Amino acid sequence: TNSKEISFGNRGMTLEEDINETNTYYLSRNKAIIHKKPTPVQIVRVDYPKRSAAVIKEGYFKQASTTDYNGIYREKYVDFEAKETKNKTSFPLSNIHEHQINHMKSVCEHGGICFLIIRFSQHDETYFFPAMKLFPYWESQFNGGRKSIPYKDVQRIGNLIPFHYQARVDYLSIIDHLYF
Amino acid sequence: TNSKEISFGNRGMTLEEDINETNTYYLSRNKAIIHKKPTPVQIVRVDYPKRSAAVIKEGYFKQASTTDYNGIYREKYVDFEAKETKNKTSFPLSNIHEHQINHMKSVCEHGGICFLIIRFSQHDETYFFPAMKLFPYWESQFNGGRKSIPYKDVQRIGNLIPFHYQARVDYLSIIDHLYF
Ligand SMILES: [Mg+2]
Ligand SMILES: [Mg+2]
Repeated sequence: TNSKEISFGNRGMTLEEDINETNTYYLSRNKAIIHKKPTPVQIVRVDYPKRSAAVIKEGYFKQASTTDYNGIYREKYVDFEAKETKNKTSFPLSNIHEHQINHMKSVCEHGGICFLIIRFSQHDETYFFPAMKLFPYWESQFNGGRKSIPYKDVQRIGNLIPFHYQARVDYLSIIDHLYF
Repeated sequence: TNSKEISFGNRGMTLEEDINETNTYYLSRNKAIIHKKPTPVQIVRVDYPKRSAAVIKEGYFKQASTTDYNGIYREKYVDFEAKETKNKTSFPLSNIHEHQINHMKSVCEHGGICFLIIRFSQHDETYFFPAMKLFPYWESQFNGGRKSIPYKDVQRIGNLIPFHYQARVDYLSIIDHLYF
């Protein structure tokens, strides 16, 4: 068994941290209300020490049934998943789960704004990729197609998300451009 | 120290369970996509046993910064908190946290449908109470007002949510009535 203390503050700026900071900034400016959903945990055993906080002593990570982020912007429901890849030439579809695809399809049907945020860390680029454009790639992998989205396609079909000092992943600017 | 195995399946039907079943039903009928957010957990220590799933060995419950449920219905962003009380004559405002109030105010400003679901378990009644009607009660407690909402007010201002076999807390029927 390998035990590990998790230090959430010391990993450098991951995509998730950049998005969380961006969301905090959006919230502080009252631009949008978008939050990351907590990691789902199956809690099995809890200790209740006297005069101090309950301690989870046994728990397991559960697979998320939806996407990472959702909320409201300009009266619209917004829903997205964030993924980072070290791959230079493509985004592997194995990063996404089928129930997430099903969730994203439903959101699109119900009129929500749904997309992926894909970071190619080797290129230091972060893209906005609409869910509607993702589904054909997802389907084609089961019909002999490739199991990834070429980097060139992400560049061509997606939108490069600008970096700003306060909105480090300024995806609302892309939403403004595409949906309003 | 008092240690406890948590059995999530054997508590009888709590309000949360009724709502979760209702949401599952709505989802299965493609009526709405509304999920409970996972309980936020601060994970401190994780074991990684060989050939089996990671085990959380130390974690703490964090206070939720938003509400319990959100999602999309009829192209609208929906956001609510569910609360159960055993009190017969009033709903104590201590059940709600200030950051939840702030969150609900923001949601209202951004055009979302925001409300409380309040169950009076002794009356076996569950009410839909719009967030906009909650705020005056919340404010008045800091100006010498009472620290609870009288049951009579909930009856008068809120809407009794019907029970159906599959939609056990059929709050969408109230949304249809109030917002469309
Ligand atoms: Mg993710
Ligand atoms: Mg609750």
